[in-house]
Amino acid sequence: MERIGRYTLSLEKVKLDSWASVVGKKESEGPLGNEFDLTCEDDSLGQDSWEKAEATLQRKALEIALGKLSLKPEGVDFVLAGDLLNQCISSTFGLRPFGIPLLGQYGACSTMALTLGLSSILVESGAARRAAAVTSSHFCSAERQFRLPLEYGGQRSPTAQWTATASGCVMVGKEGPVQVQKVTFGRITDLGITDAANMGAAMAPAAAETLGAFFRDTGTLPEEYDAIYTGDLGQVGSTLLCQLMEKEGYPIEPVHQDCGLLLFDREKQDVHAGGSGCGCSAAVLCGHILPQLAQGKLKNVLFAATGALMSPTSSQQGESIPGISHLLQLVSVQK
Amino acid sequence: MERIGRYTLSLEKVKLDSWASVVGKKESEGPLGNEFDLTCEDDSLGQDSWEKAEATLQRKALEIALGKLSLKPEGVDFVLAGDLLNQCISSTFGLRPFGIPLLGQYGACSTMALTLGLSSILVESGAARRAAAVTSSHFCSAERQFRLPLEYGGQRSPTAQWTATASGCVMVGKEGPVQVQKVTFGRITDLGITDAANMGAAMAPAAAETLGAFFRDTGTLPEEYDAIYTGDLGQVGSTLLCQLMEKEGYPIEPVHQDCGLLLFDREKQDVHAGGSGCGCSAAVLCGHILPQLAQGKLKNVLFAATGALMSPTSSQQGESIPGISHLLQLVSVQK
Repeated sequence: MERIGRYTLSLEKVKLDSWASVVGKKESEGPLGNEFDLTCEDDSLGQDSWEKAEATLQRKALEIALGKLSLKPEGVDFVLAGDLLNQCISSTFGLRPFGIPLLGQYGACSTMALTLGLSSILVESGAARRAAAVTSSHFCSAERQFRLPLEYGGQRSPTAQWTATASGCVMVGKEGPVQVQKVTFGRITDLGITDAANMGAAMAPAAAETLGAFFRDTGTLPEEYDAIYTGDLGQVGSTLLCQLMEKEGYPIEPVHQDCGLLLFDREKQDVHAGGSGCGCSAAVLCGHILPQLAQGKLKNVLFAATGALMSPTSSQQGESIPGISHLLQLVSVQK
Repeated sequence: MERIGRYTLSLEKVKLDSWASVVGKKESEGPLGNEFDLTCEDDSLGQDSWEKAEATLQRKALEIALGKLSLKPEGVDFVLAGDLLNQCISSTFGLRPFGIPLLGQYGACSTMALTLGLSSILVESGAARRAAAVTSSHFCSAERQFRLPLEYGGQRSPTAQWTATASGCVMVGKEGPVQVQKVTFGRITDLGITDAANMGAAMAPAAAETLGAFFRDTGTLPEEYDAIYTGDLGQVGSTLLCQLMEKEGYPIEPVHQDCGLLLFDREKQDVHAGGSGCGCSAAVLCGHILPQLAQGKLKNVLFAATGALMSPTSSQQGESIPGISHLLQLVSVQK
């Protein structure tokens, strides 16, 4: 493992050989609807609470990712997981049945990149032969925890995003069709946004910070990548990010895509500024991005998930919303 | 880095050269009162909310640990941090001023061992030249989030523990008087305890699981260590742990100590079963254990912090309390 520049790590040995995506009904009706491994027609997943439903999403994602390799849980040295719920209970209860050593993570909606980046380092360093990176979100559990009771049916702000009911799990090892070539972990970036219904604006500066660090560290330019995926900035955040990157001298617009904009059809699905939640970028990564890398349709992409590190309490106390973004460079092994 | 047995990692290069502990008034009146770096006479730390006070504990702990090395934040490649508050806001807001890449962690009260273990792997592998591991808890922010309004003044159960107002920060690098020799990350262990006022009983099986894994992996016995510190099992959990270890054929009682029992005087301080909270084991590690290792008074100890991975929501929904424990072997470099 080599450090490049100030913030970037270069890896040699890490490959991905299995991944799984599980989504809810609304997500299955979006533009990527037929790319996911499992669609749950009933968002309760047969559970008696939304929190238990979200835990079940994570359980199913890990089960499917294991199943694709005919692997038992004992074949995984560590599972790295986190989610948006208080005390990360969907990870705890979703992963409890497996008995794999758990390294709990918290990066809000950046969690897929955080868990995947750290899993990659564990494998590269020999600490793990294989690690699994998992995360999830659920519209119903997030809505009632962060915003309003579901039954309230209040009007949503145009800048608001729709928390995806989704989970993604990636198996990290030394074989497979996709290579993790670089990892850049982000710094907290806070430009003073206080509107909790405008997470895109709060997270865009963090994505710009991490992307800028990566380009400076590697001496590369945006046009060298087939695509640059951000986590879940939605329409408002994506526009801001492209403006910020333009200003920084790294115009990304021609290759930029946002998982929050890919997951839903904003015209037809009433999601306002786009999708969000830990599960949004996780499901798009596992359902849409990794398969294209595996097939060689994409050769070289950046995946920068973004998180808003606030809580209802911090917002109620007048605090601004700190953002963070972690980034991976993912490369197709197929020439 | 070498894997030993099923769950344990053996490290060669990682040393600790700075650490800091910050505690509140009640903690300063306990048996370890004069061993901490900073005592805050006013538990509000001059802030206008308990959550901001807790964030300030973390900020001060990192400031002091940096200051002991005359190091600027730029000298630290990563900070690994987490806490008990929803969405880990004391870490986010406490560490926001430093601009160090943040890897957010969630391990409930096991967080000090989780962050220190992962920081050690980052340094051993070359991913970081230096990393900082930080955590905190605050009686007032925890009490109102997990239990009852502070003003309510309800009677506490005899098995209940007292969340420490405390923070600890450890600098992980390649120089220093204490070596991190082994790390064992734990698995979720859940024997079905549902009483949220008896965390010790919920966490004891997790500590037994991880300690058992470590002894089996390394082929060592409890009596080979000067001390075996558990995180915050308190009186109830400590008794249970010693019984479980006796049954497993690894009797630890003669060398066992618990950070939750060390921090407070149960006779005089009305803390019922003992101390708890992420900051409890963090402050005892940084104020009491590491200094003794640095001076050679202790040569070889195990530090196994324990966490209860529940939330008020999971308990209200009838779920049991999953425990987890992560362990480090810490050795004095002084012969």
